[in-house]
Amino acid sequence: MSGSLWGRAQTAAVSQAYSTQAGGTMRLTGRYPIPNKKDLPYDIVELMEEVEMKTGFLPNVFSVMSHRPAEFRAFFAYYNAIMNKETGRLSKADKELIIVATSIVNRCPYCVIAHSALHRIYSKKPALADQVVVNWKLADLSEREQAMLEFALAVSHADNITEEHFQKLEAQGFDREDAWDIGTIASFFAMSNRIAHFIDMRPNEEFYTMGRIPRAKEKAETL
Amino acid sequence: MSGSLWGRAQTAAVSQAYSTQAGGTMRLTGRYPIPNKKDLPYDIVELMEEVEMKTGFLPNVFSVMSHRPAEFRAFFAYYNAIMNKETGRLSKADKELIIVATSIVNRCPYCVIAHSALHRIYSKKPALADQVVVNWKLADLSEREQAMLEFALAVSHADNITEEHFQKLEAQGFDREDAWDIGTIASFFAMSNRIAHFIDMRPNEEFYTMGRIPRAKEKAETL
Amino acid sequence: MSGSLWGRAQTAAVSQAYSTQAGGTMRLTGRYPIPNKKDLPYDIVELMEEVEMKTGFLPNVFSVMSHRPAEFRAFFAYYNAIMNKETGRLSKADKELIIVATSIVNRCPYCVIAHSALHRIYSKKPALADQVVVNWKLADLSEREQAMLEFALAVSHADNITEEHFQKLEAQGFDREDAWDIGTIASFFAMSNRIAHFIDMRPNEEFYTMGRIPRAKEKAETL
Amino acid sequence: MSGSLWGRAQTAAVSQAYSTQAGGTMRLTGRYPIPNKKDLPYDIVELMEEVEMKTGFLPNVFSVMSHRPAEFRAFFAYYNAIMNKETGRLSKADKELIIVATSIVNRCPYCVIAHSALHRIYSKKPALADQVVVNWKLADLSEREQAMLEFALAVSHADNITEEHFQKLEAQGFDREDAWDIGTIASFFAMSNRIAHFIDMRPNEEFYTMGRIPRAKEKAETL
Amino acid sequence: MSGSLWGRAQTAAVSQAYSTQAGGTMRLTGRYPIPNKKDLPYDIVELMEEVEMKTGFLPNVFSVMSHRPAEFRAFFAYYNAIMNKETGRLSKADKELIIVATSIVNRCPYCVIAHSALHRIYSKKPALADQVVVNWKLADLSEREQAMLEFALAVSHADNITEEHFQKLEAQGFDREDAWDIGTIASFFAMSNRIAHFIDMRPNEEFYTMGRIPRAKEKAETL
Amino acid sequence: MSGSLWGRAQTAAVSQAYSTQAGGTMRLTGRYPIPNKKDLPYDIVELMEEVEMKTGFLPNVFSVMSHRPAEFRAFFAYYNAIMNKETGRLSKADKELIIVATSIVNRCPYCVIAHSALHRIYSKKPALADQVVVNWKLADLSEREQAMLEFALAVSHADNITEEHFQKLEAQGFDREDAWDIGTIASFFAMSNRIAHFIDMRPNEEFYTMGRIPRAKEKAETL
Repeated sequence: MSGSLWGRAQTAAVSQAYSTQAGGTMRLTGRYPIPNKKDLPYDIVELMEEVEMKTGFLPNVFSVMSHRPAEFRAFFAYYNAIMNKETGRLSKADKELIIVATSIVNRCPYCVIAHSALHRIYSKKPALADQVVVNWKLADLSEREQAMLEFALAVSHADNITEEHFQKLEAQGFDREDAWDIGTIASFFAMSNRIAHFIDMRPNEEFYTMGRIPRAKEKAETL
Repeated sequence: MSGSLWGRAQTAAVSQAYSTQAGGTMRLTGRYPIPNKKDLPYDIVELMEEVEMKTGFLPNVFSVMSHRPAEFRAFFAYYNAIMNKETGRLSKADKELIIVATSIVNRCPYCVIAHSALHRIYSKKPALADQVVVNWKLADLSEREQAMLEFALAVSHADNITEEHFQKLEAQGFDREDAWDIGTIASFFAMSNRIAHFIDMRPNEEFYTMGRIPRAKEKAETL
Repeated sequence: MSGSLWGRAQTAAVSQAYSTQAGGTMRLTGRYPIPNKKDLPYDIVELMEEVEMKTGFLPNVFSVMSHRPAEFRAFFAYYNAIMNKETGRLSKADKELIIVATSIVNRCPYCVIAHSALHRIYSKKPALADQVVVNWKLADLSEREQAMLEFALAVSHADNITEEHFQKLEAQGFDREDAWDIGTIASFFAMSNRIAHFIDMRPNEEFYTMGRIPRAKEKAETL
Repeated sequence: MSGSLWGRAQTAAVSQAYSTQAGGTMRLTGRYPIPNKKDLPYDIVELMEEVEMKTGFLPNVFSVMSHRPAEFRAFFAYYNAIMNKETGRLSKADKELIIVATSIVNRCPYCVIAHSALHRIYSKKPALADQVVVNWKLADLSEREQAMLEFALAVSHADNITEEHFQKLEAQGFDREDAWDIGTIASFFAMSNRIAHFIDMRPNEEFYTMGRIPRAKEKAETL
Repeated sequence: MSGSLWGRAQTAAVSQAYSTQAGGTMRLTGRYPIPNKKDLPYDIVELMEEVEMKTGFLPNVFSVMSHRPAEFRAFFAYYNAIMNKETGRLSKADKELIIVATSIVNRCPYCVIAHSALHRIYSKKPALADQVVVNWKLADLSEREQAMLEFALAVSHADNITEEHFQKLEAQGFDREDAWDIGTIASFFAMSNRIAHFIDMRPNEEFYTMGRIPRAKEKAETL
Repeated sequence: MSGSLWGRAQTAAVSQAYSTQAGGTMRLTGRYPIPNKKDLPYDIVELMEEVEMKTGFLPNVFSVMSHRPAEFRAFFAYYNAIMNKETGRLSKADKELIIVATSIVNRCPYCVIAHSALHRIYSKKPALADQVVVNWKLADLSEREQAMLEFALAVSHADNITEEHFQKLEAQGFDREDAWDIGTIASFFAMSNRIAHFIDMRPNEEFYTMGRIPRAKEKAETL
């Protein structure tokens, strides 16, 4: 399971791009203790090491959630079930865009900064997440992306969801199963944003610049 | 795992109290198909049958979520990890009260009606959940319960959570681990409320009256 | 006047259903003194005794408002003029539904709990008021009831009321006089909700369960 | 009753000041028919003629409400009971100030314009109501008036009213009975504002300028 | 430049109407010192004297802003550029109406009271600004004025402005340059309202009654 | 004047850092025509060329505002008076932080993206503006910066500003003149944000990455 959990494609991209940027001096959450690896169950350590090796750093959400192993497993199993799902019409960039757009409503630093970075990497559009953070209605989005975010935000706001909401999605080629995917990602991050708030989870320093520099330049830098 | 998932204590209580009330004509959600048992994975069927046998009816959340087995498993594993946790200072009634108080903010019919019923059963206070639904600040709550709900609602509103929030909890005897429990339940139902909205999940008919009649009368009725 | 004030039909229904439930230990308001009957004007005592005899208990609003006899008379005269009006298309259940739907906006415990009970009795629909309390848009309402509540809520929110509002009512068979009735009930309870808040008026215990049990069972119980 | 209903003192003041300004071309409400005097019950005609004779014009609220005689009687009986009450610490100007401050929240043209006029007359402060309409917190109010309006606005907003609210009033010399008066006026106009909205009740033209010109000048003008 | 800054037409109208009303006892802001004329740069004194001579009093905004001469110059240059512009379809009364309607949203006493007065003078409609202050949607406005205010308020609320907004203006005869004018006035007063708040700028006493009395009467008074 | 208008220090910093990044393919506003330089007054062209030469590109606000030369001059004169003021305790980074924090409230893409870039350059803190954009209360700010932003945001929200607001500033070493500066910047950008919205002004592409890369790396890249 762990292999697909954080996602091979993603971690590969990240590790290539940011291998020189490890060792940040991030301020980790001070509210709950971060367990030592030696005190963690083996399956959790294994997952963390795989992610860290591929990414070049361990995103703070893994450290912080390991304080509660049973919840760690359920959280990442759910995350994996919706984010690394093979079926449906949502690309990895679409999913990250949903997370960015809904997490800014809840003003969640970790979720916005980390998933903006992942969006930049998957979409190859270095400015779009920043635009969505400021004002998604004015961002350079396709009509399809607009419809996707409009549905995601209605779910995120806990609006009553009506048939009209589904019809607007259908007009852009999303079926009911895609609606479920969009709605579940928005709902899962409604949870994650709130957990991040009470834990005071902070983004790793690496996320701020990840995916902002065109590949060519990065290569040059790493020489 | 399934044994503790929905919780033995809870289902036992429910089955005793409501065995005569099965057979409602609830309107189930029409948005997503409910799979036939024969098409479901064995572990999911096993869990559903155990719950149904003990409760006297199958709460709709089980039917509806089985449309996506991987998500079903993660959802109930997470639910189980926080709701059936043995440690900490939160009673079963406390946890249900948190769910009622936060779910009414999101105006979630399933969550409010079902968990009001569970609160009545665990607390033996038949009017308190109704009071919380109307106006938690005017409900007949202890100071401890007020502090618990104040924290839960701050998390539910995605407020920035500060040290002051934790200190108010501590003044009522809740430590940081209890705060995590309260915060996680509020966060998990921030997710569940939203999923229920886009699926259009409806409460089973049985929940409306569950726990409203004192035990003595029920006994008499079942004779 | 007093005969029709609280309404014969209503009190009869209530007295049949709840004659065994008198003697609750409700927490009455502590903010203002409740006068002794012997100190009250005769017309007020007469009205209270009539209501109490028929209902099986005296709803707290009568006790509390008797602190100011002139206001008591005006309040119940107004209540009577709109609630016990013989003409128009609003049924007694319709009127109670308006009160429930608008009072939950103001989070008024007395008004929501008491009038939910009255709605259950008049409508014979034991779950509908609970649904409206949680989320009227998702409740099992007819289109006619939805239009009625939409107008009532617009009045309750002190929205500007336009011709379009009246046209939506007309499309469901309500004329201008019905609109006046709906609007006045919503307005009167905008007042009542606020009075209940500063007086800290609490619902009688009896209201919580009133009308929840089908008649057949009640009969059996009272034997 | 009618003698004190609209208030002798008030109507006298008004008739002196504005006897030259009758005959405006106000736009009356077009939503509900205004009955002819000859079709109205005698007690209602009597009250209207008394008010008109003393004031120099008939405020529109009387015309409009006469469409429903029973409600007319209850409405003005309630109005009279709270506005022309002899006891308590609220002056006539205080009561009008409460009406202005709460009615602007609901953006009610009739209530704001008419009662601003009455406030100017009773208070002899021609600018204060205008200030309260724009921003009561920045108006030239005494601490006593501020406390009075703060309570009135809390009631008007349907806030939960706590002991702290009463203590703030007490610090300015208002007892519990005064609190009842303030709260009831705020509540009664919560109703009136909403009735005015659905009836589309408009202020008489005379109200806009009433009380703006110092008495000396008026005298000179009327010569 | 100063000649057109405050506007010749306007000051002439004002000076005729209010020359007898100078000498009010306004409460000026106490937060920042008002410089003595002798300490002010010559161009600022010249502008102030011209305005005062023509108007009969010096509007407080001139005194208060002179605390910062460079900002005074920029503020009134901008004001002049948009308010005394010769081209476009906005009349002077239109511009004042925009200021009144947007400034009440920000509850700015100086801006609402002063520009209501100017609107009365330019429009010869003594009640319209008062109506807009209470509830612009219910004011006696033409469709053209409604469209103008709807656009101004959208800008004032910092809404995203879309092509649809411009089309609604065009339907009432306003082109893109008029839209720029409306939008800039709304934006400039979004700034002015906020400056007035932190400086605690108060309206001159004269503004409250300015333009309320028909010309004929005023003439008579000044004899 | 033009020399200090956009600020020598600033443009120098920008031109050094971003000289290799000119030539973006930004989407300029399409709502209003951008004049050709040859049709613009000489003083405006001069200012634009100076800025462009030093910065390496012409920020869109200059192009867009040149559509109205008189307003262009007043806008930048005001901007200059408050942003390039030599006195007071606000650093250039402080001023940019105020703009970022208040402009995100109004969701203004140009203002947030452009001034986040300027903040990164002046502060040498590449992540702070991003943090403020997401949630200023959780950003890594000093107490002094928090007090500054709290005041700026109160002004931006058009709150009533009280003595308490000033005292909180004083506790962090800001005097009344500094308060004026903070308040005026917040007010000026309340205007600018709204102008940007109706003009649909977009950030230049260069701003998104400006100041994100440490100087050493940039040097290396430009070789």
